[in-house]
Amino acid sequence: MIEGVTERTRRTGSETKAQAQRIAFELFTAQGIKATSLRQIAERLGISKASLYYHFASKDEIVRSLFSVRGDEAAELLDWARTEKPAPDLLERAVLRWVDSTSVDKLRGIRFVNANPAMVRGMDAGSAEIRDGLERLAQFLAGDDADPTRLLLVRMALLSINSAVMAAEGTSLSDVEIVAVAREAALAFVGVLRGSSV
Amino acid sequence: MIEGVTERTRRTGSETKAQAQRIAFELFTAQGIKATSLRQIAERLGISKASLYYHFASKDEIVRSLFSVRGDEAAELLDWARTEKPAPDLLERAVLRWVDSTSVDKLRGIRFVNANPAMVRGMDAGSAEIRDGLERLAQFLAGDDADPTRLLLVRMALLSINSAVMAAEGTSLSDVEIVAVAREAALAFVGVLRGSSV
Repeated sequence: MIEGVTERTRRTGSETKAQAQRIAFELFTAQGIKATSLRQIAERLGISKASLYYHFASKDEIVRSLFSVRGDEAAELLDWARTEKPAPDLLERAVLRWVDSTSVDKLRGIRFVNANPAMVRGMDAGSAEIRDGLERLAQFLAGDDADPTRLLLVRMALLSINSAVMAAEGTSLSDVEIVAVAREAALAFVGVLRGSSV
Repeated sequence: MIEGVTERTRRTGSETKAQAQRIAFELFTAQGIKATSLRQIAERLGISKASLYYHFASKDEIVRSLFSVRGDEAAELLDWARTEKPAPDLLERAVLRWVDSTSVDKLRGIRFVNANPAMVRGMDAGSAEIRDGLERLAQFLAGDDADPTRLLLVRMALLSINSAVMAAEGTSLSDVEIVAVAREAALAFVGVLRGSSV
């Protein structure tokens, strides 16, 4: 009881929500979604299950919140790119904006998605948000009437952080190092897109 | 009975084995491993379950065979790279050798691994073969005392085909187009590795 009160005074609601997501994705990735209970997440968070329930009524809702946040980010980046003057370096600036916005939270989400593709694909409503958001962004950056292979290269540039996380599995590289390499990879893709007629 | 005989005269044992793998990975990827039975694989292949059993006693064995083949390929490429004279373009030639050897079969395996990472990670004995093979290859190509971030870029170059498959999910790109883009991506990584001090 006393602990609950302490928690409430120490953390604001949105902080608790963000931290619940963090702990949930760590547990989902490490031990699988099925083996993780809302009770376990609440315990790790030091709050009651009822308090957690206030933010997330189910594990599904936690996963959906991830896609929703990332989908919004992709939509915001597209809005930004649309208001910029069309220029040869817009692709590079947009791609770097996407990669540089990679936080530890985002990496946690990517690791979760890499570890649970079947679940992610099964959640059509949720995962469609980020997929469609990224797709619209890629299409805008690739340009009208872009060749499908050019579009794939733009997608790969945006997903370079996902590729870096995948390639870094099993290594002891830090998140900062992984993002730095992803940035170089993204720039390399931009270079190919600029130089080639693909 | 007659069908069985026809099969036996039409296909050699190794052809049947290869085709069983193909059908198995298609079914595993499309409907999941659990939902796929050896009986279903045999039926699609037009042979009896006993005939299939001669090649593969379990679904696990089919999955292991994939890693074993790819692990051998990585080991062969490393052997080749070791006998080549050290030259500035060895990295590029080795990476392109790996990407260019991408067959439809290999893409099927990559799609399966992308769709079932948990199972693949759980099969330590099997998946270690390809992981270790690729790791040794990457380490040799990165050079002695390579920085971990340089090593990650070499891994990304080798895995560019996996990244391309991941990015192409949901598109209507053909396998040939995906491999072509992966080749460009691999070359871009090699360019970064050559140009930078990473």
